[in-house]
Amino acid sequence: MTDLPTTELFGLDNLPYGVATKACHAPHVVARLGDHAVDLAGLATDADGAAWIDAWSQPNLNAFVAQGPSSWAAARTWLQETLHDQSRRDAVLARLHPLDDLTMQLPIAVADYVDFYASENHATNVGRIFRPDGDALTPNWKHLPIGYHGRSGTVVVSGTDIVRPCGQRKAPTDTEPTFGPSIRLDIEAELGFVVGGDTAVGSPVSIDEASDHLFGVGLFNDWSARDIQAWEYVPLGPFLGKSFASSLAAWITPMAALRAAKTALPKQDPQPLPYLQGDDLFGLDIAIEVEINGQVVSRPPYSTMYWSPTQMLAHMTVNGAGLRTGDLFASGTVSGDEKDERGSFLELSWSGKEPFALADGSTRSFLEDGDIVTLRATAPGTDGARIGLGEVTGRILPART
Amino acid sequence: MTDLPTTELFGLDNLPYGVATKACHAPHVVARLGDHAVDLAGLATDADGAAWIDAWSQPNLNAFVAQGPSSWAAARTWLQETLHDQSRRDAVLARLHPLDDLTMQLPIAVADYVDFYASENHATNVGRIFRPDGDALTPNWKHLPIGYHGRSGTVVVSGTDIVRPCGQRKAPTDTEPTFGPSIRLDIEAELGFVVGGDTAVGSPVSIDEASDHLFGVGLFNDWSARDIQAWEYVPLGPFLGKSFASSLAAWITPMAALRAAKTALPKQDPQPLPYLQGDDLFGLDIAIEVEINGQVVSRPPYSTMYWSPTQMLAHMTVNGAGLRTGDLFASGTVSGDEKDERGSFLELSWSGKEPFALADGSTRSFLEDGDIVTLRATAPGTDGARIGLGEVTGRILPART
Repeated sequence: MTDLPTTELFGLDNLPYGVATKACHAPHVVARLGDHAVDLAGLATDADGAAWIDAWSQPNLNAFVAQGPSSWAAARTWLQETLHDQSRRDAVLARLHPLDDLTMQLPIAVADYVDFYASENHATNVGRIFRPDGDALTPNWKHLPIGYHGRSGTVVVSGTDIVRPCGQRKAPTDTEPTFGPSIRLDIEAELGFVVGGDTAVGSPVSIDEASDHLFGVGLFNDWSARDIQAWEYVPLGPFLGKSFASSLAAWITPMAALRAAKTALPKQDPQPLPYLQGDDLFGLDIAIEVEINGQVVSRPPYSTMYWSPTQMLAHMTVNGAGLRTGDLFASGTVSGDEKDERGSFLELSWSGKEPFALADGSTRSFLEDGDIVTLRATAPGTDGARIGLGEVTGRILPART
Repeated sequence: MTDLPTTELFGLDNLPYGVATKACHAPHVVARLGDHAVDLAGLATDADGAAWIDAWSQPNLNAFVAQGPSSWAAARTWLQETLHDQSRRDAVLARLHPLDDLTMQLPIAVADYVDFYASENHATNVGRIFRPDGDALTPNWKHLPIGYHGRSGTVVVSGTDIVRPCGQRKAPTDTEPTFGPSIRLDIEAELGFVVGGDTAVGSPVSIDEASDHLFGVGLFNDWSARDIQAWEYVPLGPFLGKSFASSLAAWITPMAALRAAKTALPKQDPQPLPYLQGDDLFGLDIAIEVEINGQVVSRPPYSTMYWSPTQMLAHMTVNGAGLRTGDLFASGTVSGDEKDERGSFLELSWSGKEPFALADGSTRSFLEDGDIVTLRATAPGTDGARIGLGEVTGRILPART
């Protein structure tokens, strides 16, 4: 009897979903087991998972995500039973591929992408850096989860190289704006939440309905050109400073795998308005690592986030905005209380005033060409073990000028 | 010989494209002739327009728009020749439907939606209203076309009812935010530009390449809840104040029909950076009418817009952001120099300080339930005649509370 190639972080209680191609084959939905992936479309053909065969044969997760929470739960149960079932072991092994043989695809076709700003530490740090003479938090910050729409078409899968963007910038000391490659290129360590289930325009989703639309999470790096952003963002918000690329992990961890990671939110004071109250409010005890060129430089704890994912989703729809399967909302930069828990270089280097040292003797305020940034994360699983989230990584290529 | 049912505004030099369903039939691409539409999928089957049959049998214009400028030009030539050809008249008449028999669909599947802010008058008016003690225009305004991403999934077709959104607002005089139906619901009279042709992430589109990606324009009403917007928009821009609904005309006028409408831009001073310079800069001499409950209250002239559509597109991609067919960018509110040329109620009523009178004896500062707002427009066509743009209309329904 051959064992399955599970690892502690990617065992049978985790099973994140992705989409992979192998050689010239069409993309299929796969689930991760250790450093392998099992082809779910192929596996379901042989078993009693027929309800998902069509969905798992698609080039993204959307058709599966559209099936809704009862299908997600049944599919997970079927998959866990199938993987535990000794009599089906040969069928599983026949559809198991080393990750090295696969090319991972963007797991979802992104409908609308929204980025929130839900870390009090991050918002406070940014406020102190940009508005040193004013209140760190804007007056609305504790009343609503601030967010804005980003560019769906430039969400890319982990591993995609990031070309340094060009654009306009004007430092306060400059008399005129100039054009060129960004000189303050940054990361933002975030979680992205994948939404399933269309809703009608005009029909808000309440806090207590929100979890029915939360399929899963993936690590997310909202690359940010701070110099471009600083010059453009008043009064209508970030645009080109963000829209060149945002990287999503290849693996979407289902919310069902994160049950043990659910934790209480920090106290919300003042109490938010009733539409942001409900029974289903939670934080997530997900420990993130920010790694540059192989060296961990920060460990942002998602558990410090102020707003619940369900509050973000309820807020996003309270005006009647409809949801579409494939909508993606990100948490905003995760920054903890401590200096080495900050989720952006802007904060880690305090806007360049305090460059930080790397093991190779160099220092960083912002990203240099060739830098590779990888976000990793783990969360409590069952029985005291931990589960892993799929990494999101990207390398900075020089600007094309 | 039966004449075609053309009108002056919708004749053979206009021919906007839309998507329509009739009774239980699948949606088809159609072109407008007066108050009729000709089913292009059906017509092309009979003639030598076979290159477009598949595209015109789709439920939106995207497949056709994806074919690019040489196909757009050839299709338009073929269609004009076919409509002029007496020997094909019976085939045309057999595929002609009164608009009253058709249900118009959202003409494009919207990929990313960006809203610009390209009217100097509008930006100045808004600046004076919101920042009476500061400069009306932000320092960046004349250096770049300011824009932001909006919600693609809530772009709706003309004729869709608009449910008054609920949300948080806090007037400067309030001590706490409150929740409820928007009490400052507004319009924004804009043009929307439909983009065709995917580009790779990392490959900016220059000014001189931009027109190859501009398929056509449709009137656009960017409904805006000013009270929600005012409370939420600092620091990351408009979100729920806009995302409940944005209405696009059912008819997309091809850029080829607007050749006679091209006009010089207002002088741009200071000269923008080189990436915003080029030979293909133009304004559009499109005369818009804002009508509420049948009464025209404003006539915004698009010719006053500061930035060229090609500058907006070049700016949007200069950081390497890729384009996707179905991307939609709107101009921002069109406001002329005169009071009765303003494109929003915010400006027409000067933020409610100067309510304007309607013929029924009522006054308006912002929209009331039951109000119907329609934007119409005409532009110079060939031989001194004018062509029409398809209207965009919507009625306000009470909030669902």
